[in-house]
Amino acid sequence: MRGRLGVVTERLIVVGGDAAGMAAASQARRRRGVDDLEIVAFERGHFTSYSACGIPYWISGLVEERDALIARDPATFRDDFAIDVRLRTEVTGIDLDRREVTARRLDDGGEVRERFDTLMYATGSVPNLPDWATGDVDGIFGIQTLDDAAGLRGWLDATPAPRRAVVVGGGYIGVEMAEALIQRGLAVTLVERGEQPMATVDEDMAGLAAEAIRGLGVEIRTGTTVSGVEQRDGRVSAVLTPAGPVPADVVVLGLGVRPNTALAAAAGFPLGPTGGVRVDRRMRVAGVPGVWAAGDCVETLHRVTGMSVHIPLGTHANKQGRVAGINIGGGYATFPGVIGTAVTKVCDLEVGRTGLRERDATAAGFEFVSVIAESTNRAGYYPGAEPMTVKLIAERPTGRLLGAQIVGRSEAAKRIDALAVALWNEMTVDEMTALDLGYAPPFAPVWDPVLIAARKAVDALGR
Amino acid sequence: MRGRLGVVTERLIVVGGDAAGMAAASQARRRRGVDDLEIVAFERGHFTSYSACGIPYWISGLVEERDALIARDPATFRDDFAIDVRLRTEVTGIDLDRREVTARRLDDGGEVRERFDTLMYATGSVPNLPDWATGDVDGIFGIQTLDDAAGLRGWLDATPAPRRAVVVGGGYIGVEMAEALIQRGLAVTLVERGEQPMATVDEDMAGLAAEAIRGLGVEIRTGTTVSGVEQRDGRVSAVLTPAGPVPADVVVLGLGVRPNTALAAAAGFPLGPTGGVRVDRRMRVAGVPGVWAAGDCVETLHRVTGMSVHIPLGTHANKQGRVAGINIGGGYATFPGVIGTAVTKVCDLEVGRTGLRERDATAAGFEFVSVIAESTNRAGYYPGAEPMTVKLIAERPTGRLLGAQIVGRSEAAKRIDALAVALWNEMTVDEMTALDLGYAPPFAPVWDPVLIAARKAVDALGR
Repeated sequence: MRGRLGVVTERLIVVGGDAAGMAAASQARRRRGVDDLEIVAFERGHFTSYSACGIPYWISGLVEERDALIARDPATFRDDFAIDVRLRTEVTGIDLDRREVTARRLDDGGEVRERFDTLMYATGSVPNLPDWATGDVDGIFGIQTLDDAAGLRGWLDATPAPRRAVVVGGGYIGVEMAEALIQRGLAVTLVERGEQPMATVDEDMAGLAAEAIRGLGVEIRTGTTVSGVEQRDGRVSAVLTPAGPVPADVVVLGLGVRPNTALAAAAGFPLGPTGGVRVDRRMRVAGVPGVWAAGDCVETLHRVTGMSVHIPLGTHANKQGRVAGINIGGGYATFPGVIGTAVTKVCDLEVGRTGLRERDATAAGFEFVSVIAESTNRAGYYPGAEPMTVKLIAERPTGRLLGAQIVGRSEAAKRIDALAVALWNEMTVDEMTALDLGYAPPFAPVWDPVLIAARKAVDALGR
Repeated sequence: MRGRLGVVTERLIVVGGDAAGMAAASQARRRRGVDDLEIVAFERGHFTSYSACGIPYWISGLVEERDALIARDPATFRDDFAIDVRLRTEVTGIDLDRREVTARRLDDGGEVRERFDTLMYATGSVPNLPDWATGDVDGIFGIQTLDDAAGLRGWLDATPAPRRAVVVGGGYIGVEMAEALIQRGLAVTLVERGEQPMATVDEDMAGLAAEAIRGLGVEIRTGTTVSGVEQRDGRVSAVLTPAGPVPADVVVLGLGVRPNTALAAAAGFPLGPTGGVRVDRRMRVAGVPGVWAAGDCVETLHRVTGMSVHIPLGTHANKQGRVAGINIGGGYATFPGVIGTAVTKVCDLEVGRTGLRERDATAAGFEFVSVIAESTNRAGYYPGAEPMTVKLIAERPTGRLLGAQIVGRSEAAKRIDALAVALWNEMTVDEMTALDLGYAPPFAPVWDPVLIAARKAVDALGR
């Protein structure tokens, strides 16, 4: 295609219109006008750039309007960014030799072929589904996409009480969904394969979270695998476990996700050990010229272990997409990897983590000490002071911070950020004891909980 | 003196029994038993190791019991640490040649002489007092010490409404006291010499704080210096300003403090350009063997400018005291300086800062860009999301973070810690755009306010 000045216009095809894809598209557009770069984005769902992390809060009713979760709608991308967004259009193949994608319009079944010069692969992830969840029994819901969530929300709105829910999987999403369903008035059982839900933090810290989850009224069954479902008239009526059936009017799946790489694999993109697309620091698909990838479909560097990880999270997708888009736009940007920071809220309990858990540190071959410091989020004498527990894991003998976890009642989780920045900069716990953190009685004791933990880690190292 | 094993016991004299002095004494004791180190601490007031920062909250009544502000009382130091604490005993001279201090018992006027091997100088600060405040007019209160505060609290408890207060000085303490007095039902006028109160942050951010202070019902008079007071029957009745008298039943002074170095200067300790005692990284008084100093009486290194600063703050006093105590105890520790982090709360407005303000950066000769990013403390769609403003100052052209300020309505101020750790580690705003900070809808938008500000700073640098 020729632009206004007779120059050949380059064409960018974006596969997947959520965070990573649309961040890349908009960054590319910021740097290159319509005469220089044509942008077409294919999205198989009904939505662009929405907050999947917000789904539990829409299910619970805390967020009333579904559209509140949508950061930018297709019209905005079309009108303000001149990006040709094609919803309900699923890319079915990528032909690198012909530089062409094929796609199917889901509403009318029509097939589309589009040439590309540059390809942005941002297909996200696919939920892990057990066999029993893939049959045609009604009442089993994933909550990975806004389309999935609309199904669950529709069922909740349409079904009178009493209702029993089983949530399968005790990770962030499972726990958030259990809370959301309790808030909707359901009786909720959370089934977790491992010894505890919230295994995203170490057992000692997860125990505090499990208490909070039980405090909500959620029944937790740990060490339990769901082997199948019972149905009545085509609708789920129970999940089957080794300890017998658990009645369920609805089943919500929170068994994690894996990179969505079917198209990538078929096209010959390299996949890494985690199953994600392998990309370089600039988010180029390794060894495939003109092809970029970002978000939940790629694997990324864990800066502490130096190994590849797959951490599907909107904040990474946005950052990686932005980096890809800057580069596609002719700029220079790199994505330096992640350190595993995450925060979550269970009822009024807040949980934050960064870096490695003990099991990760062990698996990565580190020798380490770990300490737990109990303190408060405000000066002890200041009204509203709440307990706050900080755990630090530090390499032995260097003292380098490897991981940190925080559990507290209020104003606790985001304090993990200070630890994340310390870890990012490879600080030792010795260095951390001197950190100049904000102090005033409404915000911290005179020895900040983070500093108390650092001192304790220094002691544990035998300094 | 001879210890149990016939070894000569070393004697440590601590001058000043608050945070720095007692932190040093307890750390030294942790490492050296009573047979090895005798410790005597002189304190002219009635209290040891209390939270001066908590005084406004005791005045307001938010903290009910005065003793809640006391971290460790003299009995604890005596019984648990074998430290001979002598309250109401003011050191009047230090004789380095004779290795002796003289002190006066304030209750009976008796004089004391004590030999030392090692001296810990921790006299804190003295409030800046204008001439008119040093006369014998009643009703003018400093609030630097718990003894000062007891005077004000006694007046408040004894005096029936209506009462009018004038707070002189619009720094942290002045603003906190203005709020405390409003909460006690007084009509409060805050008189500030400069253009705005809360000059601890730049004008643009201080403006938000000034609004919040006015919102409390405090009348703010800026650009105003108090030249004297009017009295009636020996009690203050008004403060005099160029714009006329301002009626006052009570006057509270918040004009800042300076290092308390009278004894140090008389003894020949070196003082630095800020007027504080000069110490090395281990908190040794420079060039004076066997003498240590810490807390509000010393000056310290500002890590951003490389210059000496005097920042009186309990958290620094505690850390420096601990470092001195470890060293006195035979260990090794250093205090690496400060970066000017501070947080405060005005009504429901939270303010945090770290590093340099624009005026500091200019004074230190930096070229810089500064940006302000408006965002929210939670995902915009999550209930309770509140505005949060982040300002960043970055060196041009390197992009190194020089300073940061945050103003927000809730869960905002302590987020300055992540920026403080970034600044401590000399990160550039480019590097910061990739930081792996905690994301979940109850805690942040998918682009954290800190990251949005970093991106904006990168743009301002013309990257």
